[in-house]
Amino acid sequence: MSPIPVPLRRAVILAIGSELLTSHKLDTNSLFLTEKLNAYGIVVRYKVVVGDDEDDLATAIRDAVSCADLVVTTGGLGPTDDDITRAGVAKAFGLTLYEDLDVVSLIRKRFRSRGLKMPALNRRQALVPEGASILPNPRGTAPGLWIETGGVICLLLPGPPLELCPMFEDVLRTCIAERTAGHRIFRRVLTIVGRTESRVEELIHPVYSQWRVAGRRIDTTILASLGQIEVHLSTRTDDSDRAARLLDTATAELADVLGNSLASMHGESLESVVGRLLTNRGNRLALAESCTGGLVASRLTDVPGSSEYVLAGWVVYSNKAKIDLGVDATVIKQHGAVSEQVALAMAVQACRRGQADFGIGVTGIAGPSGGSSEKPVGTVSFGLAGPDGPIQAFTTRFLGERDRVKFQASQTALDMLRRELQRV
Amino acid sequence: MSPIPVPLRRAVILAIGSELLTSHKLDTNSLFLTEKLNAYGIVVRYKVVVGDDEDDLATAIRDAVSCADLVVTTGGLGPTDDDITRAGVAKAFGLTLYEDLDVVSLIRKRFRSRGLKMPALNRRQALVPEGASILPNPRGTAPGLWIETGGVICLLLPGPPLELCPMFEDVLRTCIAERTAGHRIFRRVLTIVGRTESRVEELIHPVYSQWRVAGRRIDTTILASLGQIEVHLSTRTDDSDRAARLLDTATAELADVLGNSLASMHGESLESVVGRLLTNRGNRLALAESCTGGLVASRLTDVPGSSEYVLAGWVVYSNKAKIDLGVDATVIKQHGAVSEQVALAMAVQACRRGQADFGIGVTGIAGPSGGSSEKPVGTVSFGLAGPDGPIQAFTTRFLGERDRVKFQASQTALDMLRRELQRV
Repeated sequence: MSPIPVPLRRAVILAIGSELLTSHKLDTNSLFLTEKLNAYGIVVRYKVVVGDDEDDLATAIRDAVSCADLVVTTGGLGPTDDDITRAGVAKAFGLTLYEDLDVVSLIRKRFRSRGLKMPALNRRQALVPEGASILPNPRGTAPGLWIETGGVICLLLPGPPLELCPMFEDVLRTCIAERTAGHRIFRRVLTIVGRTESRVEELIHPVYSQWRVAGRRIDTTILASLGQIEVHLSTRTDDSDRAARLLDTATAELADVLGNSLASMHGESLESVVGRLLTNRGNRLALAESCTGGLVASRLTDVPGSSEYVLAGWVVYSNKAKIDLGVDATVIKQHGAVSEQVALAMAVQACRRGQADFGIGVTGIAGPSGGSSEKPVGTVSFGLAGPDGPIQAFTTRFLGERDRVKFQASQTALDMLRRELQRV
Repeated sequence: MSPIPVPLRRAVILAIGSELLTSHKLDTNSLFLTEKLNAYGIVVRYKVVVGDDEDDLATAIRDAVSCADLVVTTGGLGPTDDDITRAGVAKAFGLTLYEDLDVVSLIRKRFRSRGLKMPALNRRQALVPEGASILPNPRGTAPGLWIETGGVICLLLPGPPLELCPMFEDVLRTCIAERTAGHRIFRRVLTIVGRTESRVEELIHPVYSQWRVAGRRIDTTILASLGQIEVHLSTRTDDSDRAARLLDTATAELADVLGNSLASMHGESLESVVGRLLTNRGNRLALAESCTGGLVASRLTDVPGSSEYVLAGWVVYSNKAKIDLGVDATVIKQHGAVSEQVALAMAVQACRRGQADFGIGVTGIAGPSGGSSEKPVGTVSFGLAGPDGPIQAFTTRFLGERDRVKFQASQTALDMLRRELQRV
């Protein structure tokens, strides 16, 4: 048997269960496991979901062993025929299964405490590969198992999160922590709005490529989602002060090239950033939404405490509703309901009637119908106003289905306010 | 090259992206892929998530090829350095990558349509392994790829669901359908609102257990999500008429026991059901929202054509906004802002001021603060009104965080209107 490498660095997570290969069930345990492993400086090399098949599991374990020093399995420790984890793991490592009488009596005790007799079936849960250590499960019948063999640690955890989570935290603290040499992974997430993924890459590539040259060990990942780009920085070290300094400097260098498209240095949502800026300045907001149909208000009010700064909102889908809000009917007639003039009038009226510090107006064509050659589907006009009247207005065109147009428009409306709040 | 087995039976899904190995991102595309594959009688053998590592991907592909006849990859087709899918797949199959000029011009055109110049970086997305077919991507820059080699089909799809889904449906219909044995899985989804999962099980168990006895081969699955229960019926056959008859009868039997808690027999969203009912009756709606902050209006306006029946909405977070809408200040003082009296007054004012056929009022405590022993966090009052005044009001308490309370409240508000529209 080769010795287990110290410190542990690389893990593979195997989720076991045929239900996880259907269209309505996801392996979510791995998120929890990953967070905890990362905190101890262990990265997840890859993840696999296999069905209730002993041979498939044995193959997956053998593959994992070739590139990881820690293999974590979840699920398949129940008492029925399709719970194959114990057998599959034993097969992969060439270990014999035996019935552990201590485990039998633990399981029996658990049934007795609920006034029940242990079904014969549950004896299967007391099968243990030779040399394995038992991890007690106070919340269920299946104990976990800790197997050290062939240069790796293999950890078998039960599937239900309520059993898995406390068991894993316990193992981390008692057995894994001492093998990690204090290494941890530290992260920073930058949120960028109003730039494409490739433009962000163009801007930051010259910066982060220099880090490598200078031997600053920071991993950089760019993630695009609708209306937003995230840059993830991470570094692995045993020195949290050093990590903070390294990431602070890196973030500052990226902030320089990203300019005012950088919405957050801490991965906050745009609605949280706007909420924080409004709170800090003691400013309050009113909204008039047409094509976003209340989405801007709904996103803002997702943030706890938003009742302090979201004063009022109007969903003014129809021309009549716009006119009732105070938009001049002749402006609508002259420029069309989707125009910067109307967006601005909506913003001015919202601000005035809400007695707010800022008013936002959004009007556009979410589709699928309603477009024209001059104003195609996806055309959205934005207006921003203050107590003294109009501040700015502009028009953008978004691609995609109705819900994507709505979301991107809400993102742009929030970002328009963010830039204004950070400017003045 | 060995021939591709017909019919296709076994698939492996590989999700690619280092972000999917962090603690804040799950591969959810595989649920969609699985559902669609199953519909064509193809089972998913196992699933893997690998990081942005060319060699890891190549290894995973070679493993997959040994036990599947269809390998589907998602993600890693972007323009940046960490998008390694094209290179990893080419490596696994020993294929050369070349730049496809048609793809370059497609990408350039896409940028031009948005008034942008194609960044040089995006040329990477035009790299194609020899012998691969291009799958057009009308929603993004990265085309998909179809590779047939060494006895398997390898399908490379972009990661963003809005690009992946239509592309995959298209490929299934045009290329994969003809390689299956004609067997398909037919489904029906029933949406139930206002009942717990266990109550739904109690109601429908006597019905679907009889199907088995009678030899009617229908799989029944109950799925609970926030504010909604779904019952999925499925049957596998090569006869679509027979499937339709079988599922129609089964749905009718379940509808009988579910009564008016059955919102849809076709898996529609609640906002779509409400929209359809309003359209059919030619009725129009106005909303006054406090704790849901515009979410009810936003959900309703997610539905194409909703401008026909969503007349106006008010987000009245503050007492002042409620009073401006027309709610009597003494009613707020006497009963509190979260009360059936205020919810009803909001509904009446929305209906009156919007000149609508129905008005909805929602007021509650979304949390985390603002609760009291008498009205704890999660308490929400609902009101429904028509042109002749109040129709009904009630109060419910929801559990969970702020966003869960908001969603459940929006669900209950929509369901209140649905039941009224189906009643009269």
